[in-house]
Amino acid sequence: MAITAADIFKSVEDIRAQSPLIHNITNYVVMNNTANALLAIGASPVMIHAEEEVEDMAAMAGALVINIGTLSAPWVRGMFKAFAKATSSGVPVVIDPVGAGATPYRTGTVWDLIRAGRPTIIRGNASEILALTDNRLKTKGVDSIAASDDALYAARSISKTCRCAVCVSGAVDYVVEEERLVKIANGHPMMPRVTGLGCTASALCGVFAAVERDPLMATAKAMAVMGIAGEIAAEQSPGPGSLQMHLIDALYRLTKEDIERRLKVEG
Amino acid sequence: MAITAADIFKSVEDIRAQSPLIHNITNYVVMNNTANALLAIGASPVMIHAEEEVEDMAAMAGALVINIGTLSAPWVRGMFKAFAKATSSGVPVVIDPVGAGATPYRTGTVWDLIRAGRPTIIRGNASEILALTDNRLKTKGVDSIAASDDALYAARSISKTCRCAVCVSGAVDYVVEEERLVKIANGHPMMPRVTGLGCTASALCGVFAAVERDPLMATAKAMAVMGIAGEIAAEQSPGPGSLQMHLIDALYRLTKEDIERRLKVEG
Amino acid sequence: MAITAADIFKSVEDIRAQSPLIHNITNYVVMNNTANALLAIGASPVMIHAEEEVEDMAAMAGALVINIGTLSAPWVRGMFKAFAKATSSGVPVVIDPVGAGATPYRTGTVWDLIRAGRPTIIRGNASEILALTDNRLKTKGVDSIAASDDALYAARSISKTCRCAVCVSGAVDYVVEEERLVKIANGHPMMPRVTGLGCTASALCGVFAAVERDPLMATAKAMAVMGIAGEIAAEQSPGPGSLQMHLIDALYRLTKEDIERRLKVEG
Repeated sequence: MAITAADIFKSVEDIRAQSPLIHNITNYVVMNNTANALLAIGASPVMIHAEEEVEDMAAMAGALVINIGTLSAPWVRGMFKAFAKATSSGVPVVIDPVGAGATPYRTGTVWDLIRAGRPTIIRGNASEILALTDNRLKTKGVDSIAASDDALYAARSISKTCRCAVCVSGAVDYVVEEERLVKIANGHPMMPRVTGLGCTASALCGVFAAVERDPLMATAKAMAVMGIAGEIAAEQSPGPGSLQMHLIDALYRLTKEDIERRLKVEG
Repeated sequence: MAITAADIFKSVEDIRAQSPLIHNITNYVVMNNTANALLAIGASPVMIHAEEEVEDMAAMAGALVINIGTLSAPWVRGMFKAFAKATSSGVPVVIDPVGAGATPYRTGTVWDLIRAGRPTIIRGNASEILALTDNRLKTKGVDSIAASDDALYAARSISKTCRCAVCVSGAVDYVVEEERLVKIANGHPMMPRVTGLGCTASALCGVFAAVERDPLMATAKAMAVMGIAGEIAAEQSPGPGSLQMHLIDALYRLTKEDIERRLKVEG
Repeated sequence: MAITAADIFKSVEDIRAQSPLIHNITNYVVMNNTANALLAIGASPVMIHAEEEVEDMAAMAGALVINIGTLSAPWVRGMFKAFAKATSSGVPVVIDPVGAGATPYRTGTVWDLIRAGRPTIIRGNASEILALTDNRLKTKGVDSIAASDDALYAARSISKTCRCAVCVSGAVDYVVEEERLVKIANGHPMMPRVTGLGCTASALCGVFAAVERDPLMATAKAMAVMGIAGEIAAEQSPGPGSLQMHLIDALYRLTKEDIERRLKVEG
């Protein structure tokens, strides 16, 4: 189950050739950057949340990405409807439990969500993943206060319960599916200083899931591409404002050589 | 009916001198960039959608721009109220039918909208314009799958029915009003890789309509400025992240010479 | 009551060390940039607006920032709930009355809000501050049409009524609290051409209030940092698109020397 630069770039080429439609129900903070990241990698993003139309869109999407960043009751209704329709249509679903653990509303919503259907991939930081198994955990806002290692046990447990791939992102990204584990060590320390790069990573998981049927591999490929693009961007960036912009350019220009030269994967 | 660089720049100067208030009811994805593009060209943008206040704002605006990108019922109510008030106040109205054809909710809303009042300008990509005349057309998300030429007949038909200018944007932008036609061939192939540049173009149609009473000419001027600014930006941009930023700078710095040197107009 | 570069940088260091959680209920246009500015200066931003969870978040925040930019009834309910909880929890509250005076809904909401609790800081442009004392004042959209000097009397009056610090931002920022006055003359004329930099300034007021207990000093420090970062950014920026990006980098890289060299403060 080694993952190679050639495998990853093959999926990038598939994305560029097929331009999969990615249906995002995501938060207000990151919509612009998420859409731009998806366009840059070669996908066709759509941001649609209303109950009246989410099912029509989810049914024809290459993947559905549900991100609970800026929750409210009408959006939650849209998320459940889209999730059910995607599941029944065979469309892969990524769930990003932004800020799980920060408030009971947030934790409760994501618990209900992951039990209502079968997600393909769940991606969160360590705090968020821990909150999915321990409802007493209290996180601080949307930034992680836990170490990725601590969340690995939780990730395995969620993977078994939900029968999906789970990614704990951090300095090292852990991607698990039942007993399988891939570690990705790409990325740059400045990345958490840009808002919503975790949300972008989740959206990339959706894109890769649209062209790669193995959820673990799709997630690992997405996280590797995200980390590598982040490294390329950080090298040109005096601060996080520049990093946000250069990351989009890096996704757009990503070559096989970039991946070969930088990939840090284990497992 | 030749349109010249001098005509276009005259309107740019009017915008910079008058700083018209542009009332936008637009989608979450593009709000920041739309506001920044409007500020950069010299206008004063406002983003207000609530039923409780849209009429107060629309009545005093230089133009109203309605964009259906991220629809929901409360926003639709705001759109109808603002549209009616703008119409009765003599304020020009631009409608951007984002993703028309993608879902019945979306197509139905925009059909109802363009029949509820009299828009001044409708701007969309080929798929969206075709969806306004053919409710069986099925588009993929918000990106066009049709050629601009195919949408020209639809655009003429809509122009006659709605008595407004219609723009089909693409590699070549077609602007029609009844029998009149202007083609603008400015722009750059990287522009569709930035989210919401169509939305920015629609907002610019609003700004130009605030200073130019002929809807066809206002639309043609806006599309020319958009395309020229996009060309200038693309020349400095290794990817779409940079392009998004440089486009704002290009609108801010646009000179008469830029327009004279680059304008590609026919008709 | 002299404010020095050393004082200001001490607060910057406190922010970087403590990474205070800043709860924002703000508008759609600026969410991304506000979050990025807060991350860049060293804070931990969260954007949460739903009635169901605002109290849980406000109670544990280092500061709450309420910005009425894109109002609607459900958000107003969230603002009132969060405000009450923050007040009862001893969490400082910043109110940004975006577009007060532009519509009765907007003016009425902010009047109700500032009378419902006790804000720590109110920051607005001259038109907005004037609208808080004179409900007949009519502003144009969200851009100021009044001079800062004219709003000084209004600011003093509001400060006394609400027992809070009030900032009238403009080419010179006036910060008042009862009889105390600080003037900050930092900033750059291109800054008003970027959408939402006033909103960023209000968010920075929240961050500084999380580490500096004197509301007047917190506000003055925030406005100085905002103006200085804007100057640094403008020097590298051919237009407002670049300025928006470089401002984030400047907040991230801000040094004591930057502040010492540039600070223009009086009072």
